[in-house]
Amino acid sequence: MADQPLFAQRGSTSEVEEGRAFTPKFDADGLLTCVATDARSGEVLMVAHMDAQALAKTIATGEAWYFSRSRKSLWRKGETSGHVQRVVEMRVDCDQDAVWIKVEQAGPGACHTGRRACFYRAVPLGAASAGASVRLEFRDAEKAFDPHEVYGGASTPKRGY
Amino acid sequence: MADQPLFAQRGSTSEVEEGRAFTPKFDADGLLTCVATDARSGEVLMVAHMDAQALAKTIATGEAWYFSRSRKSLWRKGETSGHVQRVVEMRVDCDQDAVWIKVEQAGPGACHTGRRACFYRAVPLGAASAGASVRLEFRDAEKAFDPHEVYGGASTPKRGY
Repeated sequence: MADQPLFAQRGSTSEVEEGRAFTPKFDADGLLTCVATDARSGEVLMVAHMDAQALAKTIATGEAWYFSRSRKSLWRKGETSGHVQRVVEMRVDCDQDAVWIKVEQAGPGACHTGRRACFYRAVPLGAASAGASVRLEFRDAEKAFDPHEVYGGASTPKRGY
Repeated sequence: MADQPLFAQRGSTSEVEEGRAFTPKFDADGLLTCVATDARSGEVLMVAHMDAQALAKTIATGEAWYFSRSRKSLWRKGETSGHVQRVVEMRVDCDQDAVWIKVEQAGPGACHTGRRACFYRAVPLGAASAGASVRLEFRDAEKAFDPHEVYGGASTPKRGY
């Protein structure tokens, strides 16, 4: 017996936007975008990608699974660090090519650099900031944990962080 | 004279993650992911993409510009609807392939379907919900405006919504 598709096939624009069928739209690489926010503070913790398997596992287990584009593999968030994400709610957007998960982040932080969240630098706005001269400003950038301790010294974790 | 690149070239992993140079990483299609949240409520309004030009215009003008993958064109948010987004703050993530903008959303909503935000349906979690049978639940799905009135009846706006 052939493998069953993990999700239903897409219908018309109206069905995709106004219907109740979950028909996620994966891109040419088989991925969709996932935004994870802190369920309490609302802060954006990270942006990552899910393939069909990661999405199905996240739905089935209520814990965040992603697909690592750099490692080209399925990745259970917190697999190495223990910093798992319990999904409180998952939403899908109008054209079903992105999901938003509100999570309870276990441990001190979500980012492999040791911060609570991945968005620890601001991009200054305004005409003077345009072009190749943009200089970032660190904001909410305190280290919440030592990534070398947690990941064993590898600058890029070999397994899912 | 050759065109100047809009942004600086990327350095080492350490420079990208811990440095002050803004070196956005565009994907094979020349895009990076942008998450727009409501600056007051923290709600995720939409997820969209920016090419280098859209990113540069957003930084220079303080208003959100995107690149529409379906229309393959630069798109000033609110160009048709008037529902522009004033950017209060822009952040970039650790590997600089995603930006997060906190915006003041003009008008009743950000979504071309007429809702305040694009994430108006929840994906139920749990083993029973896995697979092709997932049925979405509408949540925060009231229409904030009539998209036919605002966009002139086209189901997909011809220009940036």
